Amino acid sequence: MTTKHKTIRTEIGWSDSTSITLFGKDFPSEILGHLNLGDMGFLELTGRIPNPAESRMFNAMVVTLVEHGITPSSIVARMTYMGAPESLQGAVAAGLNGLGTVFVGSIEGTAKMLTEAMPRPDGQTDYKTIASSTVDAFGSRKQIVPGIGHPLHKPIDPRTPRLFALARETGFDGPYLRLMEAVSDEAARRSGKVLPVNATGAIGALCCEMKFDWKICRGLGVMARAVGLVGHILEESRNPMSGEIWRLVDERATQHFREPSPAKN
Amino acid sequence: MTTKHKTIRTEIGWSDSTSITLFGKDFPSEILGHLNLGDMGFLELTGRIPNPAESRMFNAMVVTLVEHGITPSSIVARMTYMGAPESLQGAVAAGLNGLGTVFVGSIEGTAKMLTEAMPRPDGQTDYKTIASSTVDAFGSRKQIVPGIGHPLHKPIDPRTPRLFALARETGFDGPYLRLMEAVSDEAARRSGKVLPVNATGAIGALCCEMKFDWKICRGLGVMARAVGLVGHILEESRNPMSGEIWRLVDERATQHFREPSPAKN
Amino acid sequence: MTTKHKTIRTEIGWSDSTSITLFGKDFPSEILGHLNLGDMGFLELTGRIPNPAESRMFNAMVVTLVEHGITPSSIVARMTYMGAPESLQGAVAAGLNGLGTVFVGSIEGTAKMLTEAMPRPDGQTDYKTIASSTVDAFGSRKQIVPGIGHPLHKPIDPRTPRLFALARETGFDGPYLRLMEAVSDEAARRSGKVLPVNATGAIGALCCEMKFDWKICRGLGVMARAVGLVGHILEESRNPMSGEIWRLVDERATQHFREPSPAKN
Amino acid sequence: MTTKHKTIRTEIGWSDSTSITLFGKDFPSEILGHLNLGDMGFLELTGRIPNPAESRMFNAMVVTLVEHGITPSSIVARMTYMGAPESLQGAVAAGLNGLGTVFVGSIEGTAKMLTEAMPRPDGQTDYKTIASSTVDAFGSRKQIVPGIGHPLHKPIDPRTPRLFALARETGFDGPYLRLMEAVSDEAARRSGKVLPVNATGAIGALCCEMKFDWKICRGLGVMARAVGLVGHILEESRNPMSGEIWRLVDERATQHFREPSPAKN
Repeated sequence: MTTKHKTIRTEIGWSDSTSITLFGKDFPSEILGHLNLGDMGFLELTGRIPNPAESRMFNAMVVTLVEHGITPSSIVARMTYMGAPESLQGAVAAGLNGLGTVFVGSIEGTAKMLTEAMPRPDGQTDYKTIASSTVDAFGSRKQIVPGIGHPLHKPIDPRTPRLFALARETGFDGPYLRLMEAVSDEAARRSGKVLPVNATGAIGALCCEMKFDWKICRGLGVMARAVGLVGHILEESRNPMSGEIWRLVDERATQHFREPSPAKN
Repeated sequence: MTTKHKTIRTEIGWSDSTSITLFGKDFPSEILGHLNLGDMGFLELTGRIPNPAESRMFNAMVVTLVEHGITPSSIVARMTYMGAPESLQGAVAAGLNGLGTVFVGSIEGTAKMLTEAMPRPDGQTDYKTIASSTVDAFGSRKQIVPGIGHPLHKPIDPRTPRLFALARETGFDGPYLRLMEAVSDEAARRSGKVLPVNATGAIGALCCEMKFDWKICRGLGVMARAVGLVGHILEESRNPMSGEIWRLVDERATQHFREPSPAKN
Repeated sequence: MTTKHKTIRTEIGWSDSTSITLFGKDFPSEILGHLNLGDMGFLELTGRIPNPAESRMFNAMVVTLVEHGITPSSIVARMTYMGAPESLQGAVAAGLNGLGTVFVGSIEGTAKMLTEAMPRPDGQTDYKTIASSTVDAFGSRKQIVPGIGHPLHKPIDPRTPRLFALARETGFDGPYLRLMEAVSDEAARRSGKVLPVNATGAIGALCCEMKFDWKICRGLGVMARAVGLVGHILEESRNPMSGEIWRLVDERATQHFREPSPAKN
Repeated sequence: MTTKHKTIRTEIGWSDSTSITLFGKDFPSEILGHLNLGDMGFLELTGRIPNPAESRMFNAMVVTLVEHGITPSSIVARMTYMGAPESLQGAVAAGLNGLGTVFVGSIEGTAKMLTEAMPRPDGQTDYKTIASSTVDAFGSRKQIVPGIGHPLHKPIDPRTPRLFALARETGFDGPYLRLMEAVSDEAARRSGKVLPVNATGAIGALCCEMKFDWKICRGLGVMARAVGLVGHILEESRNPMSGEIWRLVDERATQHFREPSPAKN
């Protein structure tokens, strides 16, 4: 390690014997009882208290990401709880570990794509042209365009029109949503498939409208899913499925050992 | 493994091509845009949408647990992010792993203590007597009474009067809060120390008022802290302190190797 | 936080520009190429290099815990990798999170039971009598006696005779193994069931023979399983099963939503 | 999710009432007592038991990665244990989460670089030319060449000559080590700095000699560090430093709140 000394400094907050200050606010009198949990998330990401439109839109974005029923992350949390029921926090932590590039990463991917594609304020904003070169660029890198299409929800993701309606209502229906729609149209036109904007695509575009750095967008999914995983662990504690999942997977995965193939002669 | 087959079944929800149903509600039309993130947490824990008083009280409870500035869990999340900046979810997961018996566990401990001590509805409710035997029981087991006193906040935890005021406002100012105050008074009387109800004590008592199973109370802390840890990782990405913490700890921890004690002759 | 300053100090080791010292040894010349990975684990737990008998016995103990095929922890690691293939470390971390009281905890439970039951060196060592009161104590607390019986391996756990043979060969066939066998015999006699010492029971007893603190015994399982989980992730990367597990669990868990029960009339 | 059924199948192993088979071997009689923990890691990665040279070399590689004294991962494990001492596995899991691209990832980066740069068996093997274009490629992508240089160990990493000597002794001193040295020489020549092969560079090259897929190389670091983190948790349980680290970091990070800058007038 080098000997160069650097600063250790937080602007988030501090406490003394009689007060707690967070983001420049007196926590008991200015935050507690005034902000809901989603507002608190907005405060963590921006350093300021959301106005009513921001509160409404941001809460909808994170609420969308809380609960998707049976998913790899909820199965992981349940099976971890089976082995360590004394450690609820470990089961949530295990479930969050899988929120990487494949699932929640598509929010980040969308926000990065739109951030990089969006022209400067004084530039041309022919979204159709921008979308075309964006889809080209993904194609040339053999990457999938993020934020469009859904393996189950067809022809549309039922969350997207609702999120777009909330965006219109709260004034977040801006250029990034237009560009996202143009990307979706262009990708669909080329592929001949139905590829509408999905929920993570809508949320990625809304993150851009809210001026969040794309590098932190995965954080919306992580904070939201922590809420949902607690619900799965509660259900698992009352009506467990982990033991049966184990039995089922083990039985199938080792069946070829148990039932050797018949002789070939 | 045994061969006894058991059920794999969730009541949380499911999706098909055109709909998403969670806790018996149509997600896009009945939840999205209607509930905030805290309400969604309440829904996960109870299976029903909170009424306005429940929403207000529950959001205040979890908001209290989001952010405590520099803590072991925020240091852990930051230092994990230093090594794996591509894995924001891993840094949050690492931070949550420390929310065990010592910190967030005191909510659970309080809720368990109050649940077990509270008499049946038709029983005597002389809180002073119940508190006395509760404090006795902890003393005889050489355990610390949870939910009272604070190493920094003296003479009172500034969050507690605010949480109690919100409880009065929302109608959750019930028998468990009375019993918690009686326990605090009794412990203080015996020890001669100032041992007021702290924030986790207030939240533990409020969990009882909301009829949450004490086994899931740690979940409030886990879901809340996930929100706060994302904020710490964002700050770390912009103004890192982890490298300097490493340097500082290493320097101190190995100083005795570097500067051997003077010769004894 | 209090203002009382405490020491930050490690005895494990340190480096300077030309040397690395670990546990008082010059790492490149005295450890590297001389110790195997299990020996390194022994060094971490005891601060000293194992002699040949200790090396042989300790390596056998941890090797026993590396790989159990399809288990909750290997399913968890695989399903986490599915979502975050860029984060192999997160998949291993998730899998380790489930090594709590239910599975690996039985080593710890066995070691604690034997440590507390074993009389002082100058005391009576009538193992049958000690075993009888130990089984009594567990029964009166309605706890299961750890380290005996196995849901699958009947009538004996095939690892136990091998571990006991290695103990005889290496000179670790001492009083804790005798006591463990007496506990097994006593529990079997009372229940009328076949309850032989299982692998975690043997390893817990061997931890006592090696004078490990029972509080760290879980660590043997954790270090060993980390090795095995890497193997499962490698197999998952080549021939994935996680997607199919997800599909299967989701299908079963939500079947009741899809196929409503017939009308009751 | 799609309805396409896929296979759930493991080749790792299975058990029945009287036997345990792993990687085609009878575990009690063919593995237990014959393999050490590092050999078991080799078996997990290759599916076969190492020969004596492979055992010696592979054990040295992973032993190198077990323990680096005070590091971000050991600080993380210790601070997690402070909050959840009942969950040793959670503390190890937290510590492993930071073994990402920045630290252990350099093994992977080295192995990937060498794998991609190495010509076909029948091609030219002018390592100097290959090294030159490799360093060019990293430069043009503004990436750091992995596996060379060290912030502390100067002029050489003391582990590297020892690992290279073991490679010669065991017959793993092949083309990937030659290429790694050529890359180091070329990078040093251009930069004018001392940039010798460091320990992760040597291990990355040895992974190539052993024909491990570069995608799994991070796994060597993960399995090894799990062993070391148990040692740190043991020391933390006996002589804790976490509380003092917390106090120290909090004091520094919030000092600017406590001691406002003097008035500017």
